[in-house]
Amino acid sequence: MACPAPTATSTPATVRSWNSQFCSNSPLASFSLAHTTRRPRRALVVCSVGPEKTVVIGLAADSGCGKSTFMRRLTSVFGGAAEPPKGGNPDSNTLISDTTTVICLDDYHSLDRYGRKDKGVTALDPRANNFDLMYEQVKALKEGKSVMKPIYNHVTGILDPAEQINPPKILVIEGLHPMFDARVRELLDFSIYLDISNEVKFAWKIQRDMAERGHSLESIKASIQARKPDFDAFIDPQKQYADVVIQVLPTELIPEENEGKVLRVRMVMKEGVNFFNPVYLFDEGSTISWIPCGRKLTCSYPGIKFFYGPDIYYDNEVSVLEMDGQFDRLEELIYVESHLSNISTKFYGEVTQQMLKHADFPGSNNGTGLFQTIVGLKIRDVYEQLISQTTGASLEAAKA
Amino acid sequence: MACPAPTATSTPATVRSWNSQFCSNSPLASFSLAHTTRRPRRALVVCSVGPEKTVVIGLAADSGCGKSTFMRRLTSVFGGAAEPPKGGNPDSNTLISDTTTVICLDDYHSLDRYGRKDKGVTALDPRANNFDLMYEQVKALKEGKSVMKPIYNHVTGILDPAEQINPPKILVIEGLHPMFDARVRELLDFSIYLDISNEVKFAWKIQRDMAERGHSLESIKASIQARKPDFDAFIDPQKQYADVVIQVLPTELIPEENEGKVLRVRMVMKEGVNFFNPVYLFDEGSTISWIPCGRKLTCSYPGIKFFYGPDIYYDNEVSVLEMDGQFDRLEELIYVESHLSNISTKFYGEVTQQMLKHADFPGSNNGTGLFQTIVGLKIRDVYEQLISQTTGASLEAAKA
Repeated sequence: MACPAPTATSTPATVRSWNSQFCSNSPLASFSLAHTTRRPRRALVVCSVGPEKTVVIGLAADSGCGKSTFMRRLTSVFGGAAEPPKGGNPDSNTLISDTTTVICLDDYHSLDRYGRKDKGVTALDPRANNFDLMYEQVKALKEGKSVMKPIYNHVTGILDPAEQINPPKILVIEGLHPMFDARVRELLDFSIYLDISNEVKFAWKIQRDMAERGHSLESIKASIQARKPDFDAFIDPQKQYADVVIQVLPTELIPEENEGKVLRVRMVMKEGVNFFNPVYLFDEGSTISWIPCGRKLTCSYPGIKFFYGPDIYYDNEVSVLEMDGQFDRLEELIYVESHLSNISTKFYGEVTQQMLKHADFPGSNNGTGLFQTIVGLKIRDVYEQLISQTTGASLEAAKA
Repeated sequence: MACPAPTATSTPATVRSWNSQFCSNSPLASFSLAHTTRRPRRALVVCSVGPEKTVVIGLAADSGCGKSTFMRRLTSVFGGAAEPPKGGNPDSNTLISDTTTVICLDDYHSLDRYGRKDKGVTALDPRANNFDLMYEQVKALKEGKSVMKPIYNHVTGILDPAEQINPPKILVIEGLHPMFDARVRELLDFSIYLDISNEVKFAWKIQRDMAERGHSLESIKASIQARKPDFDAFIDPQKQYADVVIQVLPTELIPEENEGKVLRVRMVMKEGVNFFNPVYLFDEGSTISWIPCGRKLTCSYPGIKFFYGPDIYYDNEVSVLEMDGQFDRLEELIYVESHLSNISTKFYGEVTQQMLKHADFPGSNNGTGLFQTIVGLKIRDVYEQLISQTTGASLEAAKA
């Protein structure tokens, strides 16, 4: 959408009201500011003015790897609860809160369960997904336009009639391929990859499919093996594009622990990302291991161990924060929080408060919950900085 | 020495002048305050009043293990240079500065080189040392009395005529046995054991005796082996009594390094010692390893690595601070100093300033120099607290 350039006599108020009429919520220009050095056309900057700018977040992960818990933690940081669209398809995959709309990228499957079976492709295969539509709709939402998004019905395995999605303050696209298509990737203001190691994925699948659903060990192994080639080819490589990768690994505190109950979780944070300052422990840029359990803090076996340090990940400079072990008591959580820096809290103990609020969510006693909560706070921070920068730039442009 | 109890009408000024006349510098009472829970007799507390109280420090270490460098670092902290007594025996082992007198415990050898050879005992053997005289003279100095101390002449191997030692502010007794005799040990206000590992001792001895003095490798090995039984029996066990043990070990940063050039130095600090708060890194009481070399600080190979954490040493609760590697540049030293806590400096960068002042001393680029300097500052701190506590207690007593 092209916007006529504002006249030199426009007042800020005029500009804003003009914008809301003709091109409200177009965040294209501000995206350019954040992700490229290319100078946006002045008209586009003005077009992106407004309190209703949509910030787009990508979350990639395999199915059944805790994306929905992550999303509930994220929306909670913004104060609201996420619910499916009111009065719509009960099998909708969308979650809506005051600030955030989470759409599931499975809705862009071009082949339904039967089509995939027919063609012999998995849902992981790009050929089973409509990236053109995904791009067009994410772009439109980012530009402040409503879209009619298809619904992939996970119960029936077929595509249901589309639902209307309105542009939210924060749009989260979660699923298998948020960073696969270069055009979609370019629309993301911030991106996360949930990387569950094969050992933990296997342990979790056994817990769920064998203990709860009665599948055999062999069938679980076979189903993991069958998915692996496509996963490695199409999903895994997206890690390299993520601003934050959360790796979930078996603990190193207990020899031979392989039930996936005690976890070692690593948060790999890309350096040099606009509006994102990686979290650190004690001394930014150095390498540290920290066992907080000691004279001041007593922990039960096997204790808690942190690691922090710089690293290289897919040729990118990153900072890594790792937590091995789990929290048993509130003191441990607040003690750890009080020693982390750059966690983007608005008050002392906000991470602990968020974790306690959702103590019943999976991972609330370990690094997955801790790092998901921190990523939620970092996204809020990115969002607020993007908004204030855009507003500032627009006011500047309006004054000029 | 018994002192008459002060009258209830004594003013502080009267008490102090009376003290300086009759029992100036008696620190017995303040010693009791520092090291036992036994309540001292009131008369003794009053007797210990005075700005000239003598604080006694013990430093244990094998010969040729850097005690003299340590002493030069210590006296430098107090601002003065240490020199042999003026106009005395040129072979005196004593070093005197404005505040500190260092006496060498070899002066209490009861058997000279010939006597030891005759009886077949080493200098490490208690039978070659006069602990009664050592105790009497250290006690007298602590009580503010001058003594006539023998001199063991390291050149001739015989005992020279005695020299007069006057009570200093700080008396350091250094040598093989400062903590061997329980009576002498009880006189110490603070104690340090310099613990050079066998590997490093061997590497240093080869460097000195083979490269510089032309001894054979076999003769060096034989001399170390010959000393070992007595060292293990009489010197090594004193470690358990030390408030601080400085352990000097081979580096773990370079595989197979055994030349004793790059060192891993550990400062083992006893908990619960009066007036002594162990140094810590980042978070007191937790366990931490820290490689400061990273984004903010660049170090040359093999870098620098710190460790800090609680431990048990000879049944005592201790905190350990370890440094492996060496400093190449001033930035590294000040960066490390700025991250250590409880180092008892009086201004930012005092450790670095002291290290630079004596950049030519052995160990100035590694943990030996760093920890010796810090121990010097801790001794100054212990001294000042002891003095102020004694003065305070005396004023209280005088007011009562």
